[in-house]
Amino acid sequence: MEILKQKTALIINIGDELLAGHTLNTNACWMSSELRKIGVYVTKHLVIADEEEAIVSVLDQLDNSVNYIFITGGLGPTDDDKTKAIITEYFGGELVFSEEVFADLILFFKKRSKIPSESNREQAFIPNNAERIMNYKGTASGMIFSKDNKKYYVMPGIPYEMKSMMKESILPALAKNASPTEFCYEVNVFGLPESYIADQIKKNFPKELTQVKIAYYPSLEGITIRLNSCVEENTKDLQLKISHLLGKAVFSHSGESLESIFVNLCIAKKLTVSCAESCTGGRMADMITSVPGSSQILNESYITYSNEAKQRLLGVPESILQAYGAVSEETVTAMLKGLFNKTNADLCIAASGIAGPGGGTVDKPVGLVYIGVKYYHKIIIQKIVYDRGRKNNKEYAARAALNIARLLISE
Amino acid sequence: MEILKQKTALIINIGDELLAGHTLNTNACWMSSELRKIGVYVTKHLVIADEEEAIVSVLDQLDNSVNYIFITGGLGPTDDDKTKAIITEYFGGELVFSEEVFADLILFFKKRSKIPSESNREQAFIPNNAERIMNYKGTASGMIFSKDNKKYYVMPGIPYEMKSMMKESILPALAKNASPTEFCYEVNVFGLPESYIADQIKKNFPKELTQVKIAYYPSLEGITIRLNSCVEENTKDLQLKISHLLGKAVFSHSGESLESIFVNLCIAKKLTVSCAESCTGGRMADMITSVPGSSQILNESYITYSNEAKQRLLGVPESILQAYGAVSEETVTAMLKGLFNKTNADLCIAASGIAGPGGGTVDKPVGLVYIGVKYYHKIIIQKIVYDRGRKNNKEYAARAALNIARLLISE
Repeated sequence: MEILKQKTALIINIGDELLAGHTLNTNACWMSSELRKIGVYVTKHLVIADEEEAIVSVLDQLDNSVNYIFITGGLGPTDDDKTKAIITEYFGGELVFSEEVFADLILFFKKRSKIPSESNREQAFIPNNAERIMNYKGTASGMIFSKDNKKYYVMPGIPYEMKSMMKESILPALAKNASPTEFCYEVNVFGLPESYIADQIKKNFPKELTQVKIAYYPSLEGITIRLNSCVEENTKDLQLKISHLLGKAVFSHSGESLESIFVNLCIAKKLTVSCAESCTGGRMADMITSVPGSSQILNESYITYSNEAKQRLLGVPESILQAYGAVSEETVTAMLKGLFNKTNADLCIAASGIAGPGGGTVDKPVGLVYIGVKYYHKIIIQKIVYDRGRKNNKEYAARAALNIARLLISE
Repeated sequence: MEILKQKTALIINIGDELLAGHTLNTNACWMSSELRKIGVYVTKHLVIADEEEAIVSVLDQLDNSVNYIFITGGLGPTDDDKTKAIITEYFGGELVFSEEVFADLILFFKKRSKIPSESNREQAFIPNNAERIMNYKGTASGMIFSKDNKKYYVMPGIPYEMKSMMKESILPALAKNASPTEFCYEVNVFGLPESYIADQIKKNFPKELTQVKIAYYPSLEGITIRLNSCVEENTKDLQLKISHLLGKAVFSHSGESLESIFVNLCIAKKLTVSCAESCTGGRMADMITSVPGSSQILNESYITYSNEAKQRLLGVPESILQAYGAVSEETVTAMLKGLFNKTNADLCIAASGIAGPGGGTVDKPVGLVYIGVKYYHKIIIQKIVYDRGRKNNKEYAARAALNIARLLISE
């Protein structure tokens, strides 16, 4: 199955902070995803040091077949930012002071009731052999160099500024010269193991898998099954079949997050939602309120971390806490009832567990969480065990809770 | 200033999902950071496709001076995982079924009350030309190939499994052969702009900056100033001077997160903390409870998203909401008072703002947040405007609130 790739690109991120592991390279990921949407395929990411030798060597060794090169990093106002000078010289130009850029800089600071610093003045020096890319979100201009039928886009490493340049200038221009030749569909699943899904699909769709490429991406957010081929109909058809096979475990077909699906489902059903969180410590409410429009469904939510708070705010009986402990089916059931009495919400969600790293026992290990969901007269209590460190445990429990709630309200 | 780099490494992450921008490459960042701690310097990251041609071509073109090559990705149980076969062949070996590995696999699944699937059985085939790296967290074994004085470490792409192999097997072994020759110190700052900090440091320490390399890393979590040189005393000395210069804006010298510093400060001072969150929607409590030991300071916390909830739960007078709106100094002050009445917490934190994308006006734009902190008799209300999208806005506001609280309790 050969896929024709019309336009290809390479991403070079320059920065000692990336190689030192101080900063996560979110730029390469975002740029790749946006470029692919308009039919530009990224074939390689390269991260190199903020040093002349490294920059020149990588430019010297570029793959000839690539159409576009995207370079980020090292354009800031401080002395460790060397990219502009090195690349300008590499392409045979020099940096010249631009009155126009300086005027833009002054305006930029004025709008923010500030004045440019001495370091910022440096940013008005721009190459005389490149096209300028306007930076509406920051002080460093972007640059476009052209050589041997290749275009080199040089941008700041600050994600917010790079994204603005890509969205406002670069992507719209590139979209005119490229078009997708591959059709990519996906199925987003929560709560089933990767190997189970893969085995089921292999068993059920051997013929389809000769025509469509499949890949599985497990993460805290669930498993994403990606399908692609150059025949749109085949790809869509297999998406539908897999979706049917996996049933309710499928929460989306577009990469939309579980929380977004959940919140929008609640909005559509005109439900009110409230949470009583112990071990998740606010992450459930945080997840719900990260979705625009969530104020339509969530009025109030509680973090009852201590036993005393569970009693006072939710009316969990002391006898239950003493007999079964805070991490138990009984306590979570009582939390749910108390939450409903307090809020009258259509959908009540509660969780109590051991986030770790301390507090685990043989009977109740770190990662054990009881999740409760009440939807009108229906109540579900589910036990999960997931231990990948405190932060991940909270994240997974919150996500599992929203998923259980999603399943219950869509029954 | 020449820094002697004893051992160098290159990281190759294999995966179409990385090039497509579907998955963020957290592996390269984490590995780089861990390797540097033991004196192994990563000089390049490469991300390539899950294709024979790409893998072979990158192995053919490796920089001769590199000591170690770390390769992740493509070892999973599904058909899109090709790395093992390609690399084994590249180094002239072949895959053979291992009874020992298969027994380990069966045990791994048994412990989880599961049985291996057909796909998993494939994972008992291992190269006859590599050393095996045990995988205690998953089903794919790691491999170590050796050639031309270089070592190639091949691991799964799942971060949790890769990290376990690195921590349990690879890093301890490498640490014996390497030692740091560079001294890296840092200063973590919140609430000051990068250019202001850079100008101040340049003006005050021109001499020191000829001896110590400095770099600035701005992010949502604040600005990290990194210092390094090959003379430990010089580096430490400048760290101290910068720290003194920037005063209370400095929250850490070790990269410890603001929330961790804040929570541990509260624990040390034996304070109880509670939040009343509107626009941050639980992110403050989530941040606090992400720190181990936070149950010592946080008993309960509230998300009062609707006006009605602000009135009923916190006693915010309707007249204030009508006269000034929910996003106002007056409302946040009333939220603080109500929160204190309800919880009696030593430290009360409240926030109300416009998270966006909708809901902004000319007078009250998206990103406007009022933050209130009450510490015994002291009350501070601060206004911030920060708009980089709903999620970032929530994150920044929650972080700014914890910082204001930190400053107030350490006065």
